Amino acid sequence: MRAAIIGGTGYGAIELIRLINKHPYLEVGSVVSNSQAGNNFSESYPHLTKIINQPLVSFDVERLVKENDIVFLATPSGVSSKMAPELVDKGIKVIDLSGDFRLRSQNEYETWYKHSAPEEEYLTKAVYGLSEIYEKEIKSAAFIANPGCYPTAASLGLLPILKANLADSKTIIIDAKSGVSGAGRGLSLTSHYAEINENLKAYKLGAHQHIPEIEQVLSDETGDSVTITFTTHLVPMTRGIMITAYVNLTEKLSTNTVNDLYNKFYENHPFVRVRPAGAYPSTKEVSGSNYCDIGLHVDPRTNRLTIISVIDNLVKGAAGQAIQNANIMNDWDVRTGLDSIPMYP
Amino acid sequence: MRAAIIGGTGYGAIELIRLINKHPYLEVGSVVSNSQAGNNFSESYPHLTKIINQPLVSFDVERLVKENDIVFLATPSGVSSKMAPELVDKGIKVIDLSGDFRLRSQNEYETWYKHSAPEEEYLTKAVYGLSEIYEKEIKSAAFIANPGCYPTAASLGLLPILKANLADSKTIIIDAKSGVSGAGRGLSLTSHYAEINENLKAYKLGAHQHIPEIEQVLSDETGDSVTITFTTHLVPMTRGIMITAYVNLTEKLSTNTVNDLYNKFYENHPFVRVRPAGAYPSTKEVSGSNYCDIGLHVDPRTNRLTIISVIDNLVKGAAGQAIQNANIMNDWDVRTGLDSIPMYP
Amino acid sequence: MRAAIIGGTGYGAIELIRLINKHPYLEVGSVVSNSQAGNNFSESYPHLTKIINQPLVSFDVERLVKENDIVFLATPSGVSSKMAPELVDKGIKVIDLSGDFRLRSQNEYETWYKHSAPEEEYLTKAVYGLSEIYEKEIKSAAFIANPGCYPTAASLGLLPILKANLADSKTIIIDAKSGVSGAGRGLSLTSHYAEINENLKAYKLGAHQHIPEIEQVLSDETGDSVTITFTTHLVPMTRGIMITAYVNLTEKLSTNTVNDLYNKFYENHPFVRVRPAGAYPSTKEVSGSNYCDIGLHVDPRTNRLTIISVIDNLVKGAAGQAIQNANIMNDWDVRTGLDSIPMYP
Amino acid sequence: MRAAIIGGTGYGAIELIRLINKHPYLEVGSVVSNSQAGNNFSESYPHLTKIINQPLVSFDVERLVKENDIVFLATPSGVSSKMAPELVDKGIKVIDLSGDFRLRSQNEYETWYKHSAPEEEYLTKAVYGLSEIYEKEIKSAAFIANPGCYPTAASLGLLPILKANLADSKTIIIDAKSGVSGAGRGLSLTSHYAEINENLKAYKLGAHQHIPEIEQVLSDETGDSVTITFTTHLVPMTRGIMITAYVNLTEKLSTNTVNDLYNKFYENHPFVRVRPAGAYPSTKEVSGSNYCDIGLHVDPRTNRLTIISVIDNLVKGAAGQAIQNANIMNDWDVRTGLDSIPMYP
Repeated sequence: MRAAIIGGTGYGAIELIRLINKHPYLEVGSVVSNSQAGNNFSESYPHLTKIINQPLVSFDVERLVKENDIVFLATPSGVSSKMAPELVDKGIKVIDLSGDFRLRSQNEYETWYKHSAPEEEYLTKAVYGLSEIYEKEIKSAAFIANPGCYPTAASLGLLPILKANLADSKTIIIDAKSGVSGAGRGLSLTSHYAEINENLKAYKLGAHQHIPEIEQVLSDETGDSVTITFTTHLVPMTRGIMITAYVNLTEKLSTNTVNDLYNKFYENHPFVRVRPAGAYPSTKEVSGSNYCDIGLHVDPRTNRLTIISVIDNLVKGAAGQAIQNANIMNDWDVRTGLDSIPMYP
Repeated sequence: MRAAIIGGTGYGAIELIRLINKHPYLEVGSVVSNSQAGNNFSESYPHLTKIINQPLVSFDVERLVKENDIVFLATPSGVSSKMAPELVDKGIKVIDLSGDFRLRSQNEYETWYKHSAPEEEYLTKAVYGLSEIYEKEIKSAAFIANPGCYPTAASLGLLPILKANLADSKTIIIDAKSGVSGAGRGLSLTSHYAEINENLKAYKLGAHQHIPEIEQVLSDETGDSVTITFTTHLVPMTRGIMITAYVNLTEKLSTNTVNDLYNKFYENHPFVRVRPAGAYPSTKEVSGSNYCDIGLHVDPRTNRLTIISVIDNLVKGAAGQAIQNANIMNDWDVRTGLDSIPMYP
Repeated sequence: MRAAIIGGTGYGAIELIRLINKHPYLEVGSVVSNSQAGNNFSESYPHLTKIINQPLVSFDVERLVKENDIVFLATPSGVSSKMAPELVDKGIKVIDLSGDFRLRSQNEYETWYKHSAPEEEYLTKAVYGLSEIYEKEIKSAAFIANPGCYPTAASLGLLPILKANLADSKTIIIDAKSGVSGAGRGLSLTSHYAEINENLKAYKLGAHQHIPEIEQVLSDETGDSVTITFTTHLVPMTRGIMITAYVNLTEKLSTNTVNDLYNKFYENHPFVRVRPAGAYPSTKEVSGSNYCDIGLHVDPRTNRLTIISVIDNLVKGAAGQAIQNANIMNDWDVRTGLDSIPMYP
Repeated sequence: MRAAIIGGTGYGAIELIRLINKHPYLEVGSVVSNSQAGNNFSESYPHLTKIINQPLVSFDVERLVKENDIVFLATPSGVSSKMAPELVDKGIKVIDLSGDFRLRSQNEYETWYKHSAPEEEYLTKAVYGLSEIYEKEIKSAAFIANPGCYPTAASLGLLPILKANLADSKTIIIDAKSGVSGAGRGLSLTSHYAEINENLKAYKLGAHQHIPEIEQVLSDETGDSVTITFTTHLVPMTRGIMITAYVNLTEKLSTNTVNDLYNKFYENHPFVRVRPAGAYPSTKEVSGSNYCDIGLHVDPRTNRLTIISVIDNLVKGAAGQAIQNANIMNDWDVRTGLDSIPMYP
């Protein structure tokens, strides 16, 4: 199957290419970049010299649909909302990595994204692609809204305890930390080396567009109307996200009991690995891979659960989960093309 | 005044020397290192070549007291507990940077530090040197237990709202992040470059020895018996601590109101700077300096306050606050020798 | 084919496991660590949780030979010299990643390595595994001395111009820069995070054990007795080596002419990529991959050639080239198991 | 004395402010930024909150001259060339940190800088401010062209051996490495965090505008017409420059002899520190300070001298040397305001 990639010069696209290249049933098809059309790929990314030799092309729906079997949109929010409907209408499978089709409510979208929402019809058509949770829906979907990086780590970390009805969803606090690649290749003072290196900063308190996405998933899955406190921090590293989530337990539980519950929850999901009590994953332990590793600690003094959940923001938080969803949609083993070992150190 | 420094080859001692060197009323006196006695200082630290030319000496109480006017102990926990009493008994002013004399209870000490506690008598004599809060007690003290790095950032961040009786002390969660220099110069896999670079890890969940220290200060100052949830993370940078603290407000307050309260609380304390609403300090903004910068955000949806508090762990979190305490003990302006601009970038 | 890995808890072994895991004809066999025998692998390396589940075993020649088809020695210099002969004598294929069998002269070995040399017999038996240059010898070899990281980057960068007889081998200067993972997982102040981060240092001037190795290759291939100037620097990054080599040309040549010569030299070698004139590779452009990327510049004012040659020290500089040599020894396509795209960013 | 700073929002200006703030005879006067005029300084640089409270002003020669006693131009090349002459004509002392007035030849300037040269008259008036070498000329100067960062480290490293007539100036190779802050605060893909972190790249081979500057100094001081080979590399760190220079000796000399020669050369220059044989400075050992530290190694096999010379690019390579020159111009001790200890770690 030929996979088209739109938004070809961003980090999301680059990671899709890295992963598709190792996938036995997918191959890199058209790579679209309107701004760089005609240029050779390796001019922007010399690491692809002699590997990806094709020129970048401009967005042309007819050709795209004719020459490819599936389309990955690695375009920014506001761009996907325009391109995706055209492609969906043509009947080709579409996986959108932007935030444009993740929220069901146009209102919520406009409140948090600060520009106009996609059409209602497509918001309804899109299936939220949190692979471990919505496997059934994804299997029959033609259009996937691939989850955000923070929401992936946060939801996978929180859902087992919430769905077991053992935690008070009114007490959820998510302290999130991300490497800088999450902000993409666009230039900005907040991605400027001398400002970020040897520095740690909090940003967008109470204003991050991933807040309503996380609340939507947690509310859907618990039946409550969940409101979270969510803080994001920029860490001086390129890849990796860590979520440290806090929630009050509604029963006295030991760390071991909670670990068992998580292990059971994810027993058929090879990409989620739960550490034994007393051990906590670090971001490097999943670097370059599609794993989400989770560590758990119950403080017996406060009966509060602390959840550490780490992913590679460009893999499980973006391109990897997109491939995982393509695997599910095509009834391939979920690990297909995603079974490489994290790069350590 | 001649200042002796004990524990002369650790990062705490090095930072004391850097700061004392610029202090108009203090000069570097004896520098003690039992393991390196006789060696030239710049062999261990070539950056001090032609600046500090004296040899390291071994610990000799009589000589130390005779040749110096104040002693800074930059020794590890378990070592200070042995050296400090001898010095205190001789009547010389002592400022201990270790954790040995910070907790008033021997029991608590042994629970968290896992070795035997110092003698009760000296635990009682020691004044806890959180400069902004205990200025009066420090002024008349002869023996200071200099606060830990995390407790300094956490206490300065939390006390204004807690002392105003506007927050529920049962809901305090502190998500702490530190650079690697906090772990000192001792070799360990958790300070090994290839393990730490491009990595983020959580450690010592529910087990960090700074937990009882923070709880003691917050309990003392609020009159409640405060129990906190505290998580520490290791960030790939050398210097800097950030505390992200969460607490439920007991009244509806706006971010601006809370900012005013903090500004008022610290109006006579030049080293605490409160950012305006919507702005949050980053660790680099205090690098190399004695500032503690604070940013605040009230989420109107949950009425929860998020507090960002940053310090340089080696300055305000160790050597700088020690000098600040020496200034207070000697009735010098609190800024003496500490007025340099943070090194940015 | 089952591949045994000896020295199982070092970075070299970890990288071998990462690569062998993706190799279609090799699988991870025994993993030997005398110090950790009996322990589970993922205790030392949690990133391998649920991937490599076998326990580490101790060194037992009989069992090793019986249960495996090829042995990779990722042991330090001085250990390989003892283990390799035993294995070679048993007739199993051996690839040694240490420096023990790279120099033909026992004298030279002892001068630079400062401990006693392996037996002459095995020095003679070992084939130097610089894959692109000694493909023929490797094909029929049973015992490979896998090249050092610096010698790989330096030799691949210098040999085309030297073998073309267009450069004066008396003027070779190699300014080498390496990430910190090259020093391994052993603890040392020179791998201590706070000493290395935001720092750049030169080390072992004129004393690095890779000097005689590079000189041996360059002398062998040119017929001259080559003496180089070689300086190594430690760069604050985990992976990557860059060689900046300088040599006087013996004829007036343009950068383009030299580029053509290099392209021709490596036309049948997929892992060496020559950048066009005016472009120079960065280390990240080969990260995690087996590529050696080369950039060239002739300064017309001095007629001196500057060569930039980059590799990932743990891949082409160690484990990757070892797999490449296994491919050659077994008549598999040289790219087998090594065709993944560099991880960027 | 009031010091005006022009180009107020760049890293050069920020570093000038940090240093002037500690200077006993200088105080921060007008801070000029045409693009940010009217704004408060700490909006761009929150680390200056409560320290520098004045607003940025626009460029107004009359007012500048009236309200200040000396002017530091921390403006980019091409801007200084326009502003400096106006100020010089008014008779105020001017120290220009840009490259505009360093080259005496308009031709050379236009060849390397690729835009039109300043007027001849001012090129002639400007004194090249390499403090250790041109102290006499600086003392009587009114207009200083402050040296570039690479030329400072390179010249101080090479001049002692060249001026002693013990090295062959035709064989000079300078392999230079710099942290990223040297490129300033302007946005560019080559300062983008995810592109630079965990990466090492060579740039501008044979094309760097510091080449003619170094050649001019070395030629002036040796009487030869010196042509160098010069390669620049970008290192993943914020501050620091290391020059590794290579030159053939014309006599057999030991490392110790060369060390003596360097120590003698710099005996009256407190900011240059020569390491003993076998030791080499790292960039962190001068971080935040005005030191230039030098290490030396003679390879007896090739009789080639390797010189390691490190500076903090923002201090001795820019703002620090500018203050040093102000000290010399005003007959103050050269160390005034520059005597702080490097920040380590």
